[in-house]
Order: sequence, then C-alpha cells, then structure tokens
Amino acid sequence: MELIYPEFYDRFAAFLRSLENQRVVVISHARPDGDCIGSQVALTRVLRALGIDAICANPDPTPRRIQFAVGDTPLVRFEGLPAGPLTAIYVDCADQSRAGEKFKTRFPAPFANIDHHLSNDGFAAHNFIDVGSAATAEILAGLFIDHHLPIDAQAAQSLYAGIATDTGQFRFNSTSRRTFMIVGELMARGAQPAAAAAELYERETPGKLDLLQRFLASLRYECDGRVCIGSLPDGIYAATGTSQEDAEGLVDYARSIEGVDIGVLIEEQSGSIKASLRAKDPVYRMDLIAARFNGGGHACAAGLNQKNIEVDTFRAQLVAALREQLEAVASLKKTTR
Amino acid sequence: MELIYPEFYDRFAAFLRSLENQRVVVISHARPDGDCIGSQVALTRVLRALGIDAICANPDPTPRRIQFAVGDTPLVRFEGLPAGPLTAIYVDCADQSRAGEKFKTRFPAPFANIDHHLSNDGFAAHNFIDVGSAATAEILAGLFIDHHLPIDAQAAQSLYAGIATDTGQFRFNSTSRRTFMIVGELMARGAQPAAAAAELYERETPGKLDLLQRFLASLRYECDGRVCIGSLPDGIYAATGTSQEDAEGLVDYARSIEGVDIGVLIEEQSGSIKASLRAKDPVYRMDLIAARFNGGGHACAAGLNQKNIEVDTFRAQLVAALREQLEAVASLKKTTR
Repeated sequence: MELIYPEFYDRFAAFLRSLENQRVVVISHARPDGDCIGSQVALTRVLRALGIDAICANPDPTPRRIQFAVGDTPLVRFEGLPAGPLTAIYVDCADQSRAGEKFKTRFPAPFANIDHHLSNDGFAAHNFIDVGSAATAEILAGLFIDHHLPIDAQAAQSLYAGIATDTGQFRFNSTSRRTFMIVGELMARGAQPAAAAAELYERETPGKLDLLQRFLASLRYECDGRVCIGSLPDGIYAATGTSQEDAEGLVDYARSIEGVDIGVLIEEQSGSIKASLRAKDPVYRMDLIAARFNGGGHACAAGLNQKNIEVDTFRAQLVAALREQLEAVASLKKTTR
Repeated sequence: MELIYPEFYDRFAAFLRSLENQRVVVISHARPDGDCIGSQVALTRVLRALGIDAICANPDPTPRRIQFAVGDTPLVRFEGLPAGPLTAIYVDCADQSRAGEKFKTRFPAPFANIDHHLSNDGFAAHNFIDVGSAATAEILAGLFIDHHLPIDAQAAQSLYAGIATDTGQFRFNSTSRRTFMIVGELMARGAQPAAAAAELYERETPGKLDLLQRFLASLRYECDGRVCIGSLPDGIYAATGTSQEDAEGLVDYARSIEGVDIGVLIEEQSGSIKASLRAKDPVYRMDLIAARFNGGGHACAAGLNQKNIEVDTFRAQLVAALREQLEAVASLKKTTR
C-alpha cells in the first residue's frame, strides 16, 4: 500500500525511536472534544502496545458522550499527573496555551506537537502538522497505518470518534478521499460507526431538547433573512437543567436555513455575553467579525466574549457589523465579476 | 484491485451486453429518496456513456433537497415516458408495486432489479440483490468500479447522495468498511461530500424549524421514561407553512434521548391518525407493534395509520401495547440470562 503521509514517514520513525524508555504524557486542550480524546487515547494505547509508558492528561473533564472513546485508557487531570520527569506530547492544540497555564508551566519545552490547525506554529521539538487533514485523529491513524503499528479495537474506535466528530459526521469541506480510506482501514481494525453514533447522537437529555426547543423559538431574522440569530437568556441552563456544554451545535440550526448565510447564537450569562458565528461560505470571514469584538476563530466558525454591555446594544452592533460584511462581499463579487 | 462484488461480476457483464440497442427506463419507488434518485441517475448516466439510450422515471416528483443528485439527467414522471418498447430496470424497489400500478401495468415483466432490501423476492429477469449493502447506490458504485465503467462527476455525486442518505450520514449499522472504501473511490471521481451536505442539510425552511420547535415542545414520556412521544396536532402544517414531508426525521429526536428505547410521532390529520415508531434496538420489534394497528415496517422503524379513532384513545392503546412489549422483552432477557 502507498504511504498515507510520506512526508512524515522518516521523521515519525525517528520520533518513535526517541520515545524509548521515556515516560510519556499525551496532552490536549481545554474543554476536550472528540478529536482531542480520540487522538490522545489512540496515541497512548499505541505507545503502550510498543512498551512505552504513556498516559493521557487534560485540563478539563471528558464530556459524557465522548466517554466511550476513552475505554480503559489511563486519563488524568493535571492534578493526577505522576511526579518526576515526563515527556509531553501535545495533540490537537494549535498552541500550547490551549491546554492551560498549569501544563505550560510544568512542560515549558514540549517534546512533540501533532495537529491539523492552520494556526499551529510548531511549538515543540517534533512537530507533525498537516492542515489538509480533517482531524488530528486522521493524521495519527495515517501514521499508525504507515508504520504498521498495532491499532487495537479501542484505539480504532477512538480515532473514528475523532474523525467523525471533527468532520461533522463527514459533512465538512475538510472531508477528503483520504478521510474515507482511513476510516475504512479503522473499520478493518474494529471501529464501529453505528456504536459510535449511538453514543454521540442518541444520548441526549430531555433538558438538552428543551434547550433546543427554546433556542428554536427564539430565532429571528436580520439582513433580509440572510442572518438568523437565536438567543439563550440568562438563567436558561438552570431552567432546563442543562449546562453550557449542551449549547454546542445549537447555532448550526440557525445556519441550516435556506437563504441564511450566517447563523448566530447569542448567550447571556450573568452580565457577560458570548456569541458564536457560523457562515455557510468562508468568504464571509467570521474570524474577522469576531476579531472586531476581541474574539477569533475560523472563516466559517468563530466566537467572541463581551463584558459590561447590554445584550440589545451588542446585538445591534453585531448586526451592523454583519450587514457591513455582507455588503462588502456583495460589492467585491460585483467588482471581480 | 480486488473485486468489490465478485459474485455479480460475470452476470453483470452479461446483463450489460444484453442492453445493447435497447431503450432503457430506470424506475424507482414512490416518494423517491436519495438512494432512489442517486441510483437511477448514476445508472442512467453510465448507460448513456456506454451509448445505450436511457432515462429515469418515477411515480412521484423529486424532493427539493435531492434535486442536486439529478443534475442534467433526463428524469420523467410516468406520463412523460416515450411510446414504444422500453426495457425496464427497477432500482431500490423491494417489490415492483413500490413504483405503483401504472408502471407495473406498462412493464409487467421487468428486465432487471437492483436492490439491497431484505424482502426483495427477485421479480425481474436479471436480479442483483445484496442485503449486506448499505444502499442500492453502494451496489451500483461497486459494480461500476469492478467493471471500469465511466462514472462522471455527476454520477459520482449522485451515488454519494444515495449512500450518505441511506446510511443516515454513515451512522446506521449497515455502514461497512466497503461503504467507506467505495465513497473514497467516488470522491476520486468527483463526489463532493460537503457540497452534498449543504444541499441535504442546509436548506431547511423557517417553517420546518418552527415545526421541529413545536414537536419538541410536545414531547411527553411514558413507561418510566423509556418511551418518548411527540405529537403534531391537526392543522400544524398550515400553521407553520410546512407539509407532511417536513415531518420526516422528527421522530428521531424523540428516540435520541438517553434512557428512551422507543421514540414515537403521533400525527392527527383531518380525523385520521398516523404514527411513526422508532426503536434503538431491534429487539423491540416495532414492526409487530405496528402490525397490531394494521401497520408495518422494520424492527427499528415502523409506521401505521388509523381512522375513526380519537387521538387520546389511540395514544392509550399504543402506550399499552408498547408497555406490554417492553415487559415481554424484559422477561425474555431474564429467561435467557
């Protein structure tokens, strides 16, 4: 079989050799998602199968629905790290700060950094960055397959979880032929898409659906129907028995409407405001809009936080910024036609 | 490369040869879905590329969101069929009646039947039935690849649409290693998952989300939270500017809740009642429950219609039947433990 990541082949082999007799900790970012956990767990399991001592560590707990991607793999919080020297490998972290200051202080010079984020600046001694990959789990799966490393059924399922979640279940533009080929290989090693889907998508709480219902009831249209905004007022989590984690994905409903170019979620929480912006087309540059409010992100998905501002004031400012952007893109399209 | 469908290889070659100089019509079932349209369009395009005159024909119009899978492929309703002899190929039809009586009367002896449904009894002269395939489009894609037939970008995208929709975006149990391998091959030929997803999932109407919101607000739990029932009262389609087509998928929200084994949608429409039943586990045999109300379907997904009955009366009868079934399964599990 052809190599999946030929450009990494020799360097990854050297990297693996240099891990011999090391004690490894595989770290990922705050509020870990499926690609964090899937990548950490799979790398840890593969290293352990090679006889290298390895554990996973995260700044935040694993979300309930991703727990299946952990299995019996050792995973601790910062406080659970063993004493003594540890070799730190960061996965799915665009920069080291994403895992928080405690990890950064303890591991000032990370050994490795495996990631698919465009903004990753290669902060470790060994960097394996591929921005063309849909998930960090895709890179790791490819490297493991290229090097004929032992991927057990749990590692295969964890890698699958990382790929499935980071591609929005194979719906995002990042999904490539390689993505599907790798998933086929993972199935041959024990990945089970239907079992993963049952965990990821069929464990909603009544409160989550209540939250969704209230969000849908709040949808309002702006900019001639091209912007759709849904709101979560202060206290809604308590009222529905949910937490901020449950708000994930709500904004996609606002974007999913025909004719809507940009979906927005505005969340009030004890005096501060959080907003999520989602565009159908990267041309609308949500990252630039978010940056105007001290936020950031990607062209299609960005977010921001604001303090000491009334929600109506913020909303008016945001709508004005979005209207300006829609008009700028329209006139740009006219010019380049 | 290894053959994908070795068991069909010789027969499919012979079948293709026998189509030379024929005028072909590729037919699928009423209320066509993504797998119907995707399979019809791809087969029609491949045959035309081979110099065989072919068109698609359906008893019902193509849903708005599947239109992208048609492209510039000739597709007519029954009334649009040309006069004179036509060679009829049925795709994705478990039996010939699924395409309606008009087609059955005009084509009493179908030439071919390509399908993945368990209940298909092989009603044509040439039958290519594989129940292990996730979609009819998966079978066709495999056959086209095995025989090195020309799959153009539109055919690749249409086949992708069939596979993506019939697997619930790669979430159903039917999704296999072969499914992913074939999709990888289709991407190499021009399939674009993100573009398909934009058509399939990002063209909601405001009314559809309003319908979803009202359905979520109606959710009630029965049988100690193991059954979740949502209702659509009479007149809700008019009130939200939607149609029955928009109710598709609502019942999945009722099933998606943790601890819920069976999700139900009850729909009142001018004196009659329609119910959809969805189980997480086939052990609950929704087909048997539906059959008690003169309905039918599969173990995990079934439906029924009732006339001249009050919705409250029906609801009580259904809950009683479901409670009985849950208890029967529980005692069966005890016995076999």
